[in-house]
Amino acid sequence: MFNGIGRKIPEEIFGLGTLRQFDSNGLVKNTQRSKDRQRNPERNKILDSLETAIRETGLKDGMTISFHHHFRNGDYIVNMVMNTISRMGIKDLVLAPSSLSTIHAPLINHIKNGVIRRIETSGLRGELAEAISNGLMDIPIVINSHGGRARAIVSGELPIDVTFLGVPSCDPAGNANGYFRDNTVISECGSLGYAKVDAQYAQKVVLITDNLVEYPNTPFAIPESQVDYIVVVDSIGDPKGIMSDATRYTKNPKDLLIAQNAADVIAASGYFENGFSLQTGSGGASLAATRFLREKMIERNIKASFALGGITGQIVALHEEGLIKRLLDVQGFDLSADESLKNNRFHQQIDAEYYASPDNPGCAVNQLDITVLSALEIDIDFNVNVITGSDGVIRGASGGHCDSAAGAAAAIVVAPLIRGRMPTILDKVHTIVTPGCSIDVLVTDQGIAVNPRRQDLYYNLRKANLPVMSIEELKEKANKIVGMPEPIKVEDKIIGVVKYRDGSVIDVIHQVKKEPWR
Amino acid sequence: MFNGIGRKIPEEIFGLGTLRQFDSNGLVKNTQRSKDRQRNPERNKILDSLETAIRETGLKDGMTISFHHHFRNGDYIVNMVMNTISRMGIKDLVLAPSSLSTIHAPLINHIKNGVIRRIETSGLRGELAEAISNGLMDIPIVINSHGGRARAIVSGELPIDVTFLGVPSCDPAGNANGYFRDNTVISECGSLGYAKVDAQYAQKVVLITDNLVEYPNTPFAIPESQVDYIVVVDSIGDPKGIMSDATRYTKNPKDLLIAQNAADVIAASGYFENGFSLQTGSGGASLAATRFLREKMIERNIKASFALGGITGQIVALHEEGLIKRLLDVQGFDLSADESLKNNRFHQQIDAEYYASPDNPGCAVNQLDITVLSALEIDIDFNVNVITGSDGVIRGASGGHCDSAAGAAAAIVVAPLIRGRMPTILDKVHTIVTPGCSIDVLVTDQGIAVNPRRQDLYYNLRKANLPVMSIEELKEKANKIVGMPEPIKVEDKIIGVVKYRDGSVIDVIHQVKKEPWR
Repeated sequence: MFNGIGRKIPEEIFGLGTLRQFDSNGLVKNTQRSKDRQRNPERNKILDSLETAIRETGLKDGMTISFHHHFRNGDYIVNMVMNTISRMGIKDLVLAPSSLSTIHAPLINHIKNGVIRRIETSGLRGELAEAISNGLMDIPIVINSHGGRARAIVSGELPIDVTFLGVPSCDPAGNANGYFRDNTVISECGSLGYAKVDAQYAQKVVLITDNLVEYPNTPFAIPESQVDYIVVVDSIGDPKGIMSDATRYTKNPKDLLIAQNAADVIAASGYFENGFSLQTGSGGASLAATRFLREKMIERNIKASFALGGITGQIVALHEEGLIKRLLDVQGFDLSADESLKNNRFHQQIDAEYYASPDNPGCAVNQLDITVLSALEIDIDFNVNVITGSDGVIRGASGGHCDSAAGAAAAIVVAPLIRGRMPTILDKVHTIVTPGCSIDVLVTDQGIAVNPRRQDLYYNLRKANLPVMSIEELKEKANKIVGMPEPIKVEDKIIGVVKYRDGSVIDVIHQVKKEPWR
Repeated sequence: MFNGIGRKIPEEIFGLGTLRQFDSNGLVKNTQRSKDRQRNPERNKILDSLETAIRETGLKDGMTISFHHHFRNGDYIVNMVMNTISRMGIKDLVLAPSSLSTIHAPLINHIKNGVIRRIETSGLRGELAEAISNGLMDIPIVINSHGGRARAIVSGELPIDVTFLGVPSCDPAGNANGYFRDNTVISECGSLGYAKVDAQYAQKVVLITDNLVEYPNTPFAIPESQVDYIVVVDSIGDPKGIMSDATRYTKNPKDLLIAQNAADVIAASGYFENGFSLQTGSGGASLAATRFLREKMIERNIKASFALGGITGQIVALHEEGLIKRLLDVQGFDLSADESLKNNRFHQQIDAEYYASPDNPGCAVNQLDITVLSALEIDIDFNVNVITGSDGVIRGASGGHCDSAAGAAAAIVVAPLIRGRMPTILDKVHTIVTPGCSIDVLVTDQGIAVNPRRQDLYYNLRKANLPVMSIEELKEKANKIVGMPEPIKVEDKIIGVVKYRDGSVIDVIHQVKKEPWR
């Protein structure tokens, strides 16, 4: 037979099977200028409203939707999308953002009205956390770690039907990144590390931006090939809430003491040598530890191979000084981190799966020597709580805590021995997020405790004359000052399920018991 | 029930189903220093030999394997792997590299011995091409365009069981890129744009490197999360063959005349304005056209939004001069392109799917204003042959020709009117690779022809007083000088099937007829 361009082609060839014949009828050449194509819906993905986008995705009752939390407490996207979905009458949804913040209190109404059936998140804060801790929902929320969430999405355990991703810049084809390059900063958030997983695995991907730029928006965090629709809105977030001022130096003497101790522990650990790697958080003590560590690195002429995780200006400064060779950035904590990601090729944006998925043996946390982690509570088995406060109410996030602890050769928890009038070390933490078997050292302002599983570390720290004692002794110290706290009283009702990074349930969170006087 | 860390967890929760209980028994903390982990097979992927890697992948008779062609004629990988596979007694394989070169002549033996059953590639050259054109294989080879191959792989039409990817640098976790950053250049190839698709979609990914570097090898073209095994060998390729000297200026007066005409056509096309976009090849005329275009851009103060495709040093120079804002690089053609990709954040590495897949409406070729393409033959319907020579023997590649032509608003073919003693314009080309309906202008040293479908372009070029005539007139000009060539005589046997980018068959290639005196 002859194909559509007049060539004689067999219908079938042995070894190749049936041949599909070329037909030029379908080929329509688009002759528009590239700049005129920018808003051409045939070539691009821009829709006129969020409502249109939601309709086009085919979102239906009962589906699962997701968001990223890179805008943190400055996020406008979750409320904007949920209000629109609610107006459209869609209900019974599973909400699976990478995390939630205080700004998301309006979700309370969507839960009450049946728009949201259940929630999976890394954390909760503020009124929403308070309401859920007090029994707002019928189905418990599920708390995932960042690595655990990536694992669940990639493995299909948490299938996402539609993801709505706010992006600080995007071109008409959908190439998006977390910063804007023409010096007119609108709503920056730096790395889009958590969003990248959703963009890759969700059935439908909607980008929401307040900053449509010329094609090609390179370098991109999210490539156009993963994007279905684009909606342009007035504002995606409040820059003040997006970029917290995490880089400020602490002057709190307790924090400085903890920081100095943590730096001493790192230096004596046995891992402090050329090519070591580290992850540090953004808390005051953790940041200050970076500062003390810097002095030791210069003193001993030691350079780190890489720093990982949420990146701060302090870490960027060490990198620019040549003390840390590479930065792996899943989330930016401040404007300096954002600027560096924008301008520095060795500051690499990574996604959450690359960062910490336990199904990925090569994930970055598995390459860590040292991680410095915070704790709300830690118990004598070294189990750590970073999710519920001393009243049992949710006020934190699982984050990358258990991921980083599991991967690092030495996981160091920094915390004050006493916080407010509450001791940090308990017989049993109220909620386990990270199992004690993956925590190696506790550093406080009053002393250091080493997990008995790590005799090697104990020996190294003792040799360096550091104030090492048993965790029971440390606990006693605090109890002598502030006494033993009453255990938190809870109802039978379970309001949250805490999953370990592998998806197994490590703990549950019960509804807080209403005292008669409350 | 109580889980493995002593917490009371229900077996099931309404709305969440059965809960998997946490168990700490499986959690073994790895306390090795990061530098000692580099060769730890539990955490990393390095195997002792190619044979071990092939065995680990589970490669079996009848499977499909793939390679990239970024090393071009300097590639050692294909022969190395095929020799090993052959020794191991595996046979009946489908070989689906992104392209093949003269250096791959040893495949002839593997075909004869039954190790290779059939081949899918973009092109063939040298002895292997000659042998196949003369009927070596029982099953015809399939010729894919770069965009068409990406589409076939992504859609599952061409499933790859195992890909073997040579990488100029790689860390123990598998982060790989096409350049090496410590100034000890070993075997560079720049962009790994074609390899990226195979890494993402193949069932098993084996990296082969001669340059194992410290973790993390950022920026990476291939992330460790896509890599199963790593094999370290002495040499992956010959740098001389990898980086062709495509940037040299032509002094051929015919090429210069074509180049000047092409630049004039672009300038008069109606697309030459601020923000236009272009793709140019690496041939002499195409390169020279870039030079003439540069003058016009400066003259009229016009800047391009992006340049696409195989990137050359000439394009890099225009970018560095500020005349082209962004570079989208699927393949580097020379060391300048490689250097630029290494050092310049606005020089973006893209994969073949992003570049040109027809299933991806936002692909980069769809954003093009201008593409400048070569041709071995073109016919009076503007159909182009870039695969078979004037003797009917395969000596080229489909490449991105039909992809770029389909996407660009103006597809300009540049060719000498007469090559050797053969006319370039024929009544019918021997093999159609790109259909005439997607070609807009033919530029030769003797005049310009516009596809009658493009009256707009015809009008613009006439208005600019360019030497426009009909393609029949141009053909006559050549025929008056060198006469009409005899049609190539062929056998009934089909030795190649040429697929258009959508997977349909646009033409077949017949075995060349043996002349009695051959």
